[in-house]
Amino acid sequence: MLEQVTIALDGMGGDKGPEVILAGAELALLHKPRTNFLIYGDEAQLKPILHRLPALAKVSTIHHCDVSISMEAKPSQALRQGRKVSSMWQAIDAVRQGKAQGIVSAGNTGALMAMSKIILKTLPGIERPAIACFWPTIGGEAVVLDVGATIGGTARQYVQFAVMGDAYARIIFGLENPRIGILNIGEEEMKGTDNVKEAAELLTESPLNFTGFVEGNGIGQGAADVIVTDGFTGNIALKTAEGTAIQFASYLRHALNSSLMSKIGYLLARRAFQALKMRMDPNNANGGMFLGLNGIVVKSHGGANRTGIASAVDLAVEIASAGIATRIADELDMVLGTQATTPEKKLASTV
Amino acid sequence: MLEQVTIALDGMGGDKGPEVILAGAELALLHKPRTNFLIYGDEAQLKPILHRLPALAKVSTIHHCDVSISMEAKPSQALRQGRKVSSMWQAIDAVRQGKAQGIVSAGNTGALMAMSKIILKTLPGIERPAIACFWPTIGGEAVVLDVGATIGGTARQYVQFAVMGDAYARIIFGLENPRIGILNIGEEEMKGTDNVKEAAELLTESPLNFTGFVEGNGIGQGAADVIVTDGFTGNIALKTAEGTAIQFASYLRHALNSSLMSKIGYLLARRAFQALKMRMDPNNANGGMFLGLNGIVVKSHGGANRTGIASAVDLAVEIASAGIATRIADELDMVLGTQATTPEKKLASTV
Repeated sequence: MLEQVTIALDGMGGDKGPEVILAGAELALLHKPRTNFLIYGDEAQLKPILHRLPALAKVSTIHHCDVSISMEAKPSQALRQGRKVSSMWQAIDAVRQGKAQGIVSAGNTGALMAMSKIILKTLPGIERPAIACFWPTIGGEAVVLDVGATIGGTARQYVQFAVMGDAYARIIFGLENPRIGILNIGEEEMKGTDNVKEAAELLTESPLNFTGFVEGNGIGQGAADVIVTDGFTGNIALKTAEGTAIQFASYLRHALNSSLMSKIGYLLARRAFQALKMRMDPNNANGGMFLGLNGIVVKSHGGANRTGIASAVDLAVEIASAGIATRIADELDMVLGTQATTPEKKLASTV
Repeated sequence: MLEQVTIALDGMGGDKGPEVILAGAELALLHKPRTNFLIYGDEAQLKPILHRLPALAKVSTIHHCDVSISMEAKPSQALRQGRKVSSMWQAIDAVRQGKAQGIVSAGNTGALMAMSKIILKTLPGIERPAIACFWPTIGGEAVVLDVGATIGGTARQYVQFAVMGDAYARIIFGLENPRIGILNIGEEEMKGTDNVKEAAELLTESPLNFTGFVEGNGIGQGAADVIVTDGFTGNIALKTAEGTAIQFASYLRHALNSSLMSKIGYLLARRAFQALKMRMDPNNANGGMFLGLNGIVVKSHGGANRTGIASAVDLAVEIASAGIATRIADELDMVLGTQATTPEKKLASTV
């Protein structure tokens, strides 16, 4: 464990502005007291907010940036306007320079990924980065990756994602041997795309704890600790699940408002409903981890509240303390070492 | 509208056996009294059941088949064992022969699709069939296709799916101009796979009411009446949504059982919960329609109860009465006619 961790914070991202970002960072200090912050953004906005948060102010320095990346900008626009000068770019670059051990942003996902790839580059042996998210299950939580960084993927890329997800789940869930599954349209070997089938063969031969294919409904049932998929399918699955949860909550609200009896029933059971709401609240497991880069990048949900930002900062600190890059390199060597010699293996073994 | 509709019934499919299939068919007679049934399967099993259902017996004939396709058989196995001789094959073949206007099976989906393709073949101008399902939305219902027939798909195949979904939604929802969306990982034009982007361009130029890309959470919000995707993504989205609904229900049950107060609250509000359960019950909107074949094939959920089977039969009767094949051929001509001349167009225009 590192004694002190410094987190670079994109002070300007997110739907709710710097007020919530900074309040979240201060909240995170309660769980991670040994954290320092480099806060990037418009000093005129950030300074008065920080002034009202003395605990945070004590461990933070503001770095003024002229440009903020808008939530709507396309990655190409963001790069044109924000290269070098934006709060997002500079916060990421602080990680590259070693001034910070991780960066947290609630800003534009596409821009954050594009800049992170350019500034930090992928780890040796990793062709493409992935975004890993937490997924609540009946019995606990799973990690799903990729949920939006890459479209499609070769069998080897699936294996790289599996390795990254495995290392991540070991750290975050403290599991010794996380169960790895591949998202597919059936549990049978013959189903799915060629890439998915080939990836399953590679993982079966690997030392990872591969449990086979998982269907869409298996994710929430906890069929595996790590669910591997490509960014297209993963993003659609994630958003579909979010949408369904919102839909169910809306039906429930409607049902409970439908009669006097049901309203009274709701009042009596309201603690139970509050617990349910807590459980469904994405702010409690906020933070998309960009895996596969030379540096730790955590994307908070744009709409996150103070608790959500604090979760994302917690996550960055935890992963920064655990040295995930070395673990991924070691595992990659081990897993791809079981197959033919590859450029990846050679690269990974030099790390 | 046809005066009388004959439905071929695979009497042996499904998790719950012929008892439930036949009970469901009898229930369907309440809504669709002008329906006759050809029931395919093991006569020794079917006869005594039919004897106990006099209303159904009056409009049904049993056709004995020696072989039943198991729910677990791979399509290749099913074809080896069940070609010509199985209840599933013969029920589909009744449609090809014109003895029935549609076939309903709760059996093995892969086998049903494989046999349907061989026996019925695709419609002129349709390269690959699709399975369309109903998806509950905040405001009503949407059709999503494909949810499992094809993996991947070219831009032209997406357009064919859009045409089939459009014709289906016009009939089923009585909509004059259904809103068509393509499932994607963002609403922006630049996002997604090349095929999806190209399909969007084709649909924008077409006379269909194309509303653009829909994200996973947009399906349940009712962002479009018809959601077009390929069978890999669609199947994963569907199962993820089903899984999330089950998960939410389990959390809710747990919450309501957590204290005496919440239990009392549940009792007072139980009508509201029953209404909610009704709304979430897949049996009320059961029936995966195989679109794009020379004949109507409805796949009931394997675990469907009597109500579920009745919904599937209702659906088959409704679509059989509406002449969907002609509509698809006409629309295909219209939509693909706006583009370059193609073999499909020529074929479609001969129908």
